[in-house]
Amino acid sequence: MNKNLTFSVVGGDMRQVFLAKQLLLDGYNVSSFAIERYSFPNNIKTLGTNDFSNSDIIILPMPLEREKHKLNAPLCNTSYNTSSIFNSIRPKTYVFGGNITKEISNIAKRNNIFIFDYLNREELTIGNAIPTCEGAIELAMHELPITLHCANALIIGNGRIGSMLSKLLSALHCNVTVSARCAKDFALISSQGFNHINTNSLCGNLKNFDFIVNTVPAPVITKKELQEIKSECLIIDLASGNGGTDFRFAEKIGVRAIHALSLPGKVAPFSAALVIKNTIYTILQEEGVI
Amino acid sequence: MNKNLTFSVVGGDMRQVFLAKQLLLDGYNVSSFAIERYSFPNNIKTLGTNDFSNSDIIILPMPLEREKHKLNAPLCNTSYNTSSIFNSIRPKTYVFGGNITKEISNIAKRNNIFIFDYLNREELTIGNAIPTCEGAIELAMHELPITLHCANALIIGNGRIGSMLSKLLSALHCNVTVSARCAKDFALISSQGFNHINTNSLCGNLKNFDFIVNTVPAPVITKKELQEIKSECLIIDLASGNGGTDFRFAEKIGVRAIHALSLPGKVAPFSAALVIKNTIYTILQEEGVI
Amino acid sequence: MNKNLTFSVVGGDMRQVFLAKQLLLDGYNVSSFAIERYSFPNNIKTLGTNDFSNSDIIILPMPLEREKHKLNAPLCNTSYNTSSIFNSIRPKTYVFGGNITKEISNIAKRNNIFIFDYLNREELTIGNAIPTCEGAIELAMHELPITLHCANALIIGNGRIGSMLSKLLSALHCNVTVSARCAKDFALISSQGFNHINTNSLCGNLKNFDFIVNTVPAPVITKKELQEIKSECLIIDLASGNGGTDFRFAEKIGVRAIHALSLPGKVAPFSAALVIKNTIYTILQEEGVI
Amino acid sequence: MNKNLTFSVVGGDMRQVFLAKQLLLDGYNVSSFAIERYSFPNNIKTLGTNDFSNSDIIILPMPLEREKHKLNAPLCNTSYNTSSIFNSIRPKTYVFGGNITKEISNIAKRNNIFIFDYLNREELTIGNAIPTCEGAIELAMHELPITLHCANALIIGNGRIGSMLSKLLSALHCNVTVSARCAKDFALISSQGFNHINTNSLCGNLKNFDFIVNTVPAPVITKKELQEIKSECLIIDLASGNGGTDFRFAEKIGVRAIHALSLPGKVAPFSAALVIKNTIYTILQEEGVI
Repeated sequence: MNKNLTFSVVGGDMRQVFLAKQLLLDGYNVSSFAIERYSFPNNIKTLGTNDFSNSDIIILPMPLEREKHKLNAPLCNTSYNTSSIFNSIRPKTYVFGGNITKEISNIAKRNNIFIFDYLNREELTIGNAIPTCEGAIELAMHELPITLHCANALIIGNGRIGSMLSKLLSALHCNVTVSARCAKDFALISSQGFNHINTNSLCGNLKNFDFIVNTVPAPVITKKELQEIKSECLIIDLASGNGGTDFRFAEKIGVRAIHALSLPGKVAPFSAALVIKNTIYTILQEEGVI
Repeated sequence: MNKNLTFSVVGGDMRQVFLAKQLLLDGYNVSSFAIERYSFPNNIKTLGTNDFSNSDIIILPMPLEREKHKLNAPLCNTSYNTSSIFNSIRPKTYVFGGNITKEISNIAKRNNIFIFDYLNREELTIGNAIPTCEGAIELAMHELPITLHCANALIIGNGRIGSMLSKLLSALHCNVTVSARCAKDFALISSQGFNHINTNSLCGNLKNFDFIVNTVPAPVITKKELQEIKSECLIIDLASGNGGTDFRFAEKIGVRAIHALSLPGKVAPFSAALVIKNTIYTILQEEGVI
Repeated sequence: MNKNLTFSVVGGDMRQVFLAKQLLLDGYNVSSFAIERYSFPNNIKTLGTNDFSNSDIIILPMPLEREKHKLNAPLCNTSYNTSSIFNSIRPKTYVFGGNITKEISNIAKRNNIFIFDYLNREELTIGNAIPTCEGAIELAMHELPITLHCANALIIGNGRIGSMLSKLLSALHCNVTVSARCAKDFALISSQGFNHINTNSLCGNLKNFDFIVNTVPAPVITKKELQEIKSECLIIDLASGNGGTDFRFAEKIGVRAIHALSLPGKVAPFSAALVIKNTIYTILQEEGVI
Repeated sequence: MNKNLTFSVVGGDMRQVFLAKQLLLDGYNVSSFAIERYSFPNNIKTLGTNDFSNSDIIILPMPLEREKHKLNAPLCNTSYNTSSIFNSIRPKTYVFGGNITKEISNIAKRNNIFIFDYLNREELTIGNAIPTCEGAIELAMHELPITLHCANALIIGNGRIGSMLSKLLSALHCNVTVSARCAKDFALISSQGFNHINTNSLCGNLKNFDFIVNTVPAPVITKKELQEIKSECLIIDLASGNGGTDFRFAEKIGVRAIHALSLPGKVAPFSAALVIKNTIYTILQEEGVI
């Protein structure tokens, strides 16, 4: 590896802080920008505004922007335009970020910057599923007056998160049912020893669940499903965007429903940083940079 | 079963609330006393002071007293002497409680009350170990910036809680080491696929752990152990009494150490109530009452 | 369901026997052909040669042929040409079989027979993976002088069988390493808590394994890999066709290597039959037949 | 450790062979006696009849005798009286064996021999439970036409073997029920997520089991239990002595019942030898010999 490379970690939350420290421990030069509310040790230099002249590799946050055109930088006191940052990056710099907009991507290409959205990498999605599942488990343990042991759980969706979460909950002695939509998934669910129901016809099967975790980003827990579940049932909705739950109706009838987003950064920022770092290393290896 | 029996639930926390409701669902008459801050439904009658004349079975809290001679009743606005309560109980009433003092036990016997300390029953200890373990897992997930997945965990002690917790953590993909003191326990730990070390010589083996859960009520994490563990390591001490950790020294050197007591009532009061109820039912069956 | 349907079970091994019995228990009419060495109860009628006039649904074996053009029928005393069987099936009959050749498929289409190769269905592949994994475990237990507990196992390939087998072996306290070829699979393997190595560079990592299970149908355990493994190491090759092992060289240097094919029918014919039956039912439901 | 010690391995089966080799690998001098049908390498010397003059530690088989007064030596062509062997051992030799009779123990004491029955050590019982459980799993896989996945299993007894086996079977996705006799065991079984029934009242609960593993050395599967189980149900009886099954009646009504004894030596002689070796080392350490 070429340890003379300089990584600049720009914006973001505690994941970026841990990422900077991990890169330093790996022997790289590391600088930071737009994270000034965290006190880094001296060997992580704070960069001046838009001074990326010495940065070989720049790591932007996940997501790049929360507010349109603005760098996502909760640990920073100033607001920066994402485009202005990209306009001050040297050509041929390697830049990584999550959920990079088309607009920014175009600026990068125009400026001859090598830009990568690490969220497109499946190994990152898988790595992120772990803290997401642990976050869902912690939430269920915290919110429910019962133990997960012997609780009846429904996981809606058998994708990355659904299939991982079902195994972990079962290992904690939950009675696990997973819903899916096709014969292949039903076979996969059965092969793990779990019950399965059809996501398209949840009604009629819901009244015994103590908690439900939704992973499907589509309206799957609507009024009629909510009317069937028991009042003590907890809903944890992990689906992105608006989730899959009619939260307004849930509140109206007194069913607790939590839309739990961005769990990796909240639950395990150190591990989430490690996943990002490893994904970036893999890309840099593929590119022949390290 | 004789469903004409009247259970009176007296004092205690949310476990007693859930216990009252569960008994009602089972078809018994239920009344309550010294839990007035919780609004029971109408079919759970609130008793007048020391009016246990219609109570066939009285369930006191776990523990019976937190302050000497005073009923443990955090959901009550008045303070009651435990002895005065016992002096108003009819002879031949069945009375259950946890950690009943010798003094109270003597009053009960003198008054010809049938008294049982459910904490003496192993099925209750085992049942309580489940929410205790889940509470420890929740705490570790909440406090650590890393996932339990791939974390290095040390469990000190291979008793009820240690042996259950080690299996659950391993199921969450923790790297589990368990410490114990004898060849038999070492063999048991190995038979589960875990590493083992000797509780008597922890030093020299501690520097890689991300968290440590102590279950031994004796000074096992003293100054010299604390000096060896890494500064990010979290200590969760589940041991009763003063625990097994030198908490003062831990704080001094900046190691987080949490003394987590009475987890069942906090983590899963409904399930903890169920365990108590089932234990009481078993005893009543053995006594030929139900 | 239309229980007046008649299923004819034709050729094959004990799976077909169990399949016939299961269909009967489900309430269908069942007849058999070319399985005469098994004594069916009276309510499963034996058909005369090529008399499929009353068969609504015909179930052929997996695979349809072992010898070219000949029906696979180990429980039959006569040899039948597959084509002659197809030429005596009525038009619009539903016919199911495994590994149906292009030639037979063409005959079926020409005769207006509705033909389905159940091996194309992923739910069958998944269902078959279970007895395959159990067969591999049984074989490892039987052949090795050590327990699977604490044994070092390498699974080559992280597909259906590899990913299922790794979980089961780990549950038996094996130390599991899985080899794969891409970052996504490495992430999946790690997310289960297993070690991973690269299938393309096994050498240098092989000397500690007590047994190796190969699932990749390509030469992965060649001379140089065989020279590195320890002499007591057992190789179980589950890959179809010629497997992935240089069996001749293995024998020469005294390494035990077993090419274990068609495990479901050998290990658990009843369960394998159930998987076929459920797949056929799903197809018949999709076709609106039942 | 004092590596100048000479261990003599005397009689027994393949476990003793592996034990001799393991001791050699650990750096000790090793000789053998009454195992001559196995060709040891040259560095394991074969002793002349009753020539234990250079033996510091003698390891006898488990069990010491199968036939009364005769050394258990299936790999030996000659028959030896156990007493004659003990009469030729020097005073102060450390001698280990399994199931040492009172008679032999008295001779040893009279001759001032330090004798230890390793079967009295719990770590050995626990270590032996592992190959026993794996042997039972292998047997069930081999005998049943169904997969263990989804099979309904009853384990009779929640001791060392029962509690270990139930966890392993559950990990293979068996539906596990364990029978026991007391509230404490019922709580332990539930805490693992398994069903429990009472060993004293098995009847009424038996008809759905696909296989039953008995660990209780008392008549628990008698005529009336056998009449209730389904005819395909397999019984694996691991209980010592006469087992817990009425084998004659089982055979009469066509229920397969296998009395599977001494599994560790058959299933995993290498691992079984390791368990014995480690137990002997622990004892020698306690005695200050190594």
